[in-house]
Amino acid sequence: MEILSRIEKIIKKFSERNLWIAIAESCTGGYISHMITNISGASKVFERGVICYGNQAKIDLLSVDPQDIEIYGAVSEQVAIQMARNVRTISKACEIGIGTTGIAGPTGDTPEKPVGLVFVGFSTKKETFVKKYIFNTDRLTFKKKVLEEVVKLLENYDIGKI
Amino acid sequence: MEILSRIEKIIKKFSERNLWIAIAESCTGGYISHMITNISGASKVFERGVICYGNQAKIDLLSVDPQDIEIYGAVSEQVAIQMARNVRTISKACEIGIGTTGIAGPTGDTPEKPVGLVFVGFSTKKETFVKKYIFNTDRLTFKKKVLEEVVKLLENYDIGKI
Repeated sequence: MEILSRIEKIIKKFSERNLWIAIAESCTGGYISHMITNISGASKVFERGVICYGNQAKIDLLSVDPQDIEIYGAVSEQVAIQMARNVRTISKACEIGIGTTGIAGPTGDTPEKPVGLVFVGFSTKKETFVKKYIFNTDRLTFKKKVLEEVVKLLENYDIGKI
Repeated sequence: MEILSRIEKIIKKFSERNLWIAIAESCTGGYISHMITNISGASKVFERGVICYGNQAKIDLLSVDPQDIEIYGAVSEQVAIQMARNVRTISKACEIGIGTTGIAGPTGDTPEKPVGLVFVGFSTKKETFVKKYIFNTDRLTFKKKVLEEVVKLLENYDIGKI
């Protein structure tokens, strides 16, 4: 099924349960929020998002621990988890928080962190977890692949657990 | 010229002067930030953005005056101005703030405010102004037309004034 139809289904499923999603985007730079808001009715599940492209933005807007950025790097499990959890908690009305941090390329890689590396954090009141992927491709395809994973997460998540 | 090439030129022009842009998006829902971050090198001018889709997000993330939202509505000159100015001032390192608020449709219009109405705020330390447009079309074309206006503003703005 086409991605926008899948997003439309997610919006329907979550809005019927009055569940709200907040998004913190680094490497996807607004693409996930943009695709969700392409659907009329998005405002029933999506009320806010943060694009924290720089490190200082992650600290200022999402209270990500600067020490963790220094120790683990901005593209890390630790930062993705904080982005997902904190974007949810700064949005009192939101039940789900999502965070993306990665290296879209073509520059920015290091020996330990290749171009295409991305962490997606997912947070509810009951649990917070992170998934790791490598999508070494052009910047737009990279964003599309990350969106695809976020969509899968939202499709498959048992909302009874929230 | 294709829009991405125009954005690339803007990034070059602004990064050469070390000028940073912060963006607050309501009706465009992340599209402007997404298109800017499609360009490698975007991180030299773009460090943060806020997607304040709901009213509470405008108040919480950007300190938009709730009374102004009540009196003039979220889609208004007054709110666009505050979005542009405040996204700049909450980003200490940023010289330019941009804010978008409008009615992407197909629903959400009122007798005074038709589908397609949009206000784009633009703010520097020296001046803040707002432009008003009506783009009555589908949601994605609406976003593209708003982006086009933002790009024109950035292309034509005399950066010597900043």
